[in-house]
Amino acid sequence: MDTLCITGGRVLHPDGRVRTDDVVIDRDAGRILAVGDETRAADATATLDATGGLVIPGLVNAHTHASMTLLRGYADDKPLDAWLREDIWPVEAALTPDDIEAGAELAALEMIRSGTTAFADMYFAVDRVAAVVDRAGLRARLGHGVVTLGKDEPAAAADIDESLSVAAELDGAADGRIRTAFMPHSLTTVNEDHLRDGIARAAAADVPVHLHANETADEVDPIVDERGQRPLEYADELGALGADTFLAHCVHVDDAEIDLLADTDTAVVHCPASNMKLASGMAPVARLREAGVTVALGTDGAASNNDLDLFDEMRDAAMIGKLAAGDASAVPAAAAVDLATAGGADALGLPGGRIEPGAAADVAVVDLDAAHLTPVHDPVSHLVYAARGSDVRHTVCDGRVLMRDREVVTLDAAAVRERAAAAAHDLVARAEADG
Amino acid sequence: MDTLCITGGRVLHPDGRVRTDDVVIDRDAGRILAVGDETRAADATATLDATGGLVIPGLVNAHTHASMTLLRGYADDKPLDAWLREDIWPVEAALTPDDIEAGAELAALEMIRSGTTAFADMYFAVDRVAAVVDRAGLRARLGHGVVTLGKDEPAAAADIDESLSVAAELDGAADGRIRTAFMPHSLTTVNEDHLRDGIARAAAADVPVHLHANETADEVDPIVDERGQRPLEYADELGALGADTFLAHCVHVDDAEIDLLADTDTAVVHCPASNMKLASGMAPVARLREAGVTVALGTDGAASNNDLDLFDEMRDAAMIGKLAAGDASAVPAAAAVDLATAGGADALGLPGGRIEPGAAADVAVVDLDAAHLTPVHDPVSHLVYAARGSDVRHTVCDGRVLMRDREVVTLDAAAVRERAAAAAHDLVARAEADG
Repeated sequence: MDTLCITGGRVLHPDGRVRTDDVVIDRDAGRILAVGDETRAADATATLDATGGLVIPGLVNAHTHASMTLLRGYADDKPLDAWLREDIWPVEAALTPDDIEAGAELAALEMIRSGTTAFADMYFAVDRVAAVVDRAGLRARLGHGVVTLGKDEPAAAADIDESLSVAAELDGAADGRIRTAFMPHSLTTVNEDHLRDGIARAAAADVPVHLHANETADEVDPIVDERGQRPLEYADELGALGADTFLAHCVHVDDAEIDLLADTDTAVVHCPASNMKLASGMAPVARLREAGVTVALGTDGAASNNDLDLFDEMRDAAMIGKLAAGDASAVPAAAAVDLATAGGADALGLPGGRIEPGAAADVAVVDLDAAHLTPVHDPVSHLVYAARGSDVRHTVCDGRVLMRDREVVTLDAAAVRERAAAAAHDLVARAEADG
Repeated sequence: MDTLCITGGRVLHPDGRVRTDDVVIDRDAGRILAVGDETRAADATATLDATGGLVIPGLVNAHTHASMTLLRGYADDKPLDAWLREDIWPVEAALTPDDIEAGAELAALEMIRSGTTAFADMYFAVDRVAAVVDRAGLRARLGHGVVTLGKDEPAAAADIDESLSVAAELDGAADGRIRTAFMPHSLTTVNEDHLRDGIARAAAADVPVHLHANETADEVDPIVDERGQRPLEYADELGALGADTFLAHCVHVDDAEIDLLADTDTAVVHCPASNMKLASGMAPVARLREAGVTVALGTDGAASNNDLDLFDEMRDAAMIGKLAAGDASAVPAAAAVDLATAGGADALGLPGGRIEPGAAADVAVVDLDAAHLTPVHDPVSHLVYAARGSDVRHTVCDGRVLMRDREVVTLDAAAVRERAAAAAHDLVARAEADG
């Protein structure tokens, strides 16, 4: 058997305990074979040194638009609506499939360098994003984002068809590391008939559903005004809620909606940095978790974050979780880590998120040997409150080493950055010439 | 003349513009001699390569308790009052001067590595902190924190005397890089007579004043209940407000208190991470700045943060500034950078905070050559929303290079970390044996 042994590190176990253990991986199966069994370590085909480090599940970025790395820092400090209409949408209209691939590749590089092994992506030219996931060695749930607002009927129907056909065609790609979903953008940007039709067809084909929901008050109020019902009641009536659905944001949800999420086993992807940066509000993460809702973490696109570093997101989730609850004990460090690991894997229906025998071999090793991580009273606290993506030493996905000692082995970092920088420059020049 | 030229970088000028320029430093005077004058660059005694980087003022950490790095991650996720009484104060009671020096040295190492060149410190054994500042090469405003609560009269009076005598003795130390202040802990932990006495004596000796103010609602309410006045009205009556005073936190301030701060030219040190982590609330930074109040940034102690990285603090200030104002355009990136640079220097009454001829030669060079900083549409946005302390390449204070290419030259990093880790371990063991 072809095995990889991660040796000498302190392992974060699913019960939250941290203990020095070896982690033995079956590279053919892409699975964790054993944790703590030193006799197998001696027989391993290959080893990865984790001495002085903390071995954690690979992080899961459960909501992003990866190619938007091209727009990192392009337009900041504006309200969501003006930001989308004046800055983001005009530039997105000029995006080519080559741009989307270049941006996704930059995102993959950044994610690997900060310990992320899986992500969910809602964007366009999904085949090009899938090609990047394949060669980067990551795991992903991908989909084509549907917007019918402002489209005529044939174009709107075609967009729904595109999202469903992309989901059918790409599911299982990259040796099974790519899974898919039907991805209507939101309850206000896709009209009712198309939502109903698409969701029914997705359910019939066993395809999960991902959409933005209850992100801003401006998105909730029109639904309440027009329908006399809360957005998630409307989503439920459309058949959109359920164990195969994960919703991004859910900032503005009332108690009845929280119960509805729990009752239908619908997962929520909390995006704290994006919600702060766009002044959308603070999602009630502590209350969602208390109600039994599966909560994951997402960076959202790099234009509203502005990076794809889940260490920032864990810290933000703990920090604004306390502010939102008015309670310093809300969203403690262990909960924040759970959001970014097991919560993410469960929300996306992907393997991983736990270091235990049988789990997918998606692992990050965090180097604790640094001034800002000294002393080590509690390594779990450090993950959330003091570590940064740059502290990740190794990244492993599906049993394959993607980064070793800060060197990404599946991508040519310099070439990826050069290509993305050139694409971003040309994209903005084109968009501004058009506008 | 002994000159250092920082070459090839993009310089953040005081007007917010970014332009490729050389920065020439007079090392004897510790001052910036010229910006952009290439003829002087050719004659420089020494050079520091900033190609591909951004040259910014050294960051100012305007409120911390540096030695609390020893308690980083020791106790998290608890409300302020319980956290202080059950965890922090019992351990602090066991602190020795050696511990304080070891913790301050770890803090100095961490600050240099994340581009901070000046800080304000309220703690004990201030002579030991001063010794660290001297050999680390940093700039600081230091003071002895006074608490009279629970002390008998002679001990309380002695604590006031200690803070004033420390301020007198250490002012001007480390070739003038150390300045001092009288530092009563807060309006509720020092009694009225001692506050009045100490503040009058500080004013008579031209010694600035630093205290915590309006951090939590629990600290404001008793003053309102007992005195029928807001805390800052009480502070004003005590003579505590003025151009030589800087107040930490000011989370819970009403409109009249904001006006009072502006009218008296009193500076505020915003500590967003600490305020989030302890669920203290969100300071009205946008409103304070609109009123004309000088606002700086502080990490507070590492136990409530949990690091001393001002890049996190700039990001947090922009992020919760928007949440607090309900406006995504509040506290834009340029404002957040101002808080951490010119705002900090002005609040502390220290030189620095601006890259311009005549200013103190306190400089950090941020490396933009990284995946998470690609592309570069706006370098100021990157400083706040995407860069981390680990992106700092060089740190210069008072014309002296403290870190070159990530190697700290004034401190032995491994020895500092080893000493601090051992001190932290022994400290906690002693405190837990006593408790």
